Amino acid sequence: MDTTPVKRVTIIAAQSLQETLISEIRSLGANGYTYVVVQGAGTSGVRPNEWSGPNGRLEVITTAEVADRILEHVAARYFDHYPLIAYVDEVHVMRPEKYGVV
Amino acid sequence: MDTTPVKRVTIIAAQSLQETLISEIRSLGANGYTYVVVQGAGTSGVRPNEWSGPNGRLEVITTAEVADRILEHVAARYFDHYPLIAYVDEVHVMRPEKYGVV
Amino acid sequence: MDTTPVKRVTIIAAQSLQETLISEIRSLGANGYTYVVVQGAGTSGVRPNEWSGPNGRLEVITTAEVADRILEHVAARYFDHYPLIAYVDEVHVMRPEKYGVV
Repeated sequence: MDTTPVKRVTIIAAQSLQETLISEIRSLGANGYTYVVVQGAGTSGVRPNEWSGPNGRLEVITTAEVADRILEHVAARYFDHYPLIAYVDEVHVMRPEKYGVV
Repeated sequence: MDTTPVKRVTIIAAQSLQETLISEIRSLGANGYTYVVVQGAGTSGVRPNEWSGPNGRLEVITTAEVADRILEHVAARYFDHYPLIAYVDEVHVMRPEKYGVV
Repeated sequence: MDTTPVKRVTIIAAQSLQETLISEIRSLGANGYTYVVVQGAGTSGVRPNEWSGPNGRLEVITTAEVADRILEHVAARYFDHYPLIAYVDEVHVMRPEKYGVV
């Protein structure tokens, strides 16, 4: 099977941020996403255990360039004020053009 | 800890395809799966934003050979007619024989 | 974007184990987790298809040392008696100190 490596960005944040985050990742160049409600707890930059409770997990499969843009945006906009984590890894897709990879 | 690399195939598709997909991956050699309902949106090969709405995310941990078979099947059977994405990455397991790795 | 590789441990087990597992991973050094209810089926070391039905998927992002400790604990404590799978992969985070990485 012929596959191409692309980036997968995962953002875990309060459910109240769902619509804003989805709108922002679209503006930054994402073609699609999946979103699922999760429970969670952790330490944040704001105060310990702040993101305990219902959260959303947002996943975006996209180019390295857009992934980078999303991480930079999330860091600048949210890290100091919101209990949110974001990370990136790599998955291998068929039809990379669907994710903006040319 | 002694771990072995195996493949993880992820398929995101309409919930209506859940039972069919599970039955098909079993026929292709998968020993198990996890399934979770997700929201999502994206562009598909069929028309833009077609997979907006409730979808299911199916994950299968298996051998490279079965992973390849699943991707080939999904591409041939669904890509032209269904808004579905599929991708593969690698995870490290203990007890690889549980996933068909010998 | 400046990111650091860290480990992500995933444990899929019966929902009845949720509170115990969360308490145990905290004792072993995890700073946080996410948890989501999933459906699943698979073969276990106990008997075939034992983990069919509602399960929970627990994810922990942490150091290589804590990840190893969690896998060893889970293998020793659960593998012979519970239908449970556990695996590890790597993701790239910003702010690695939040996950105990120094």
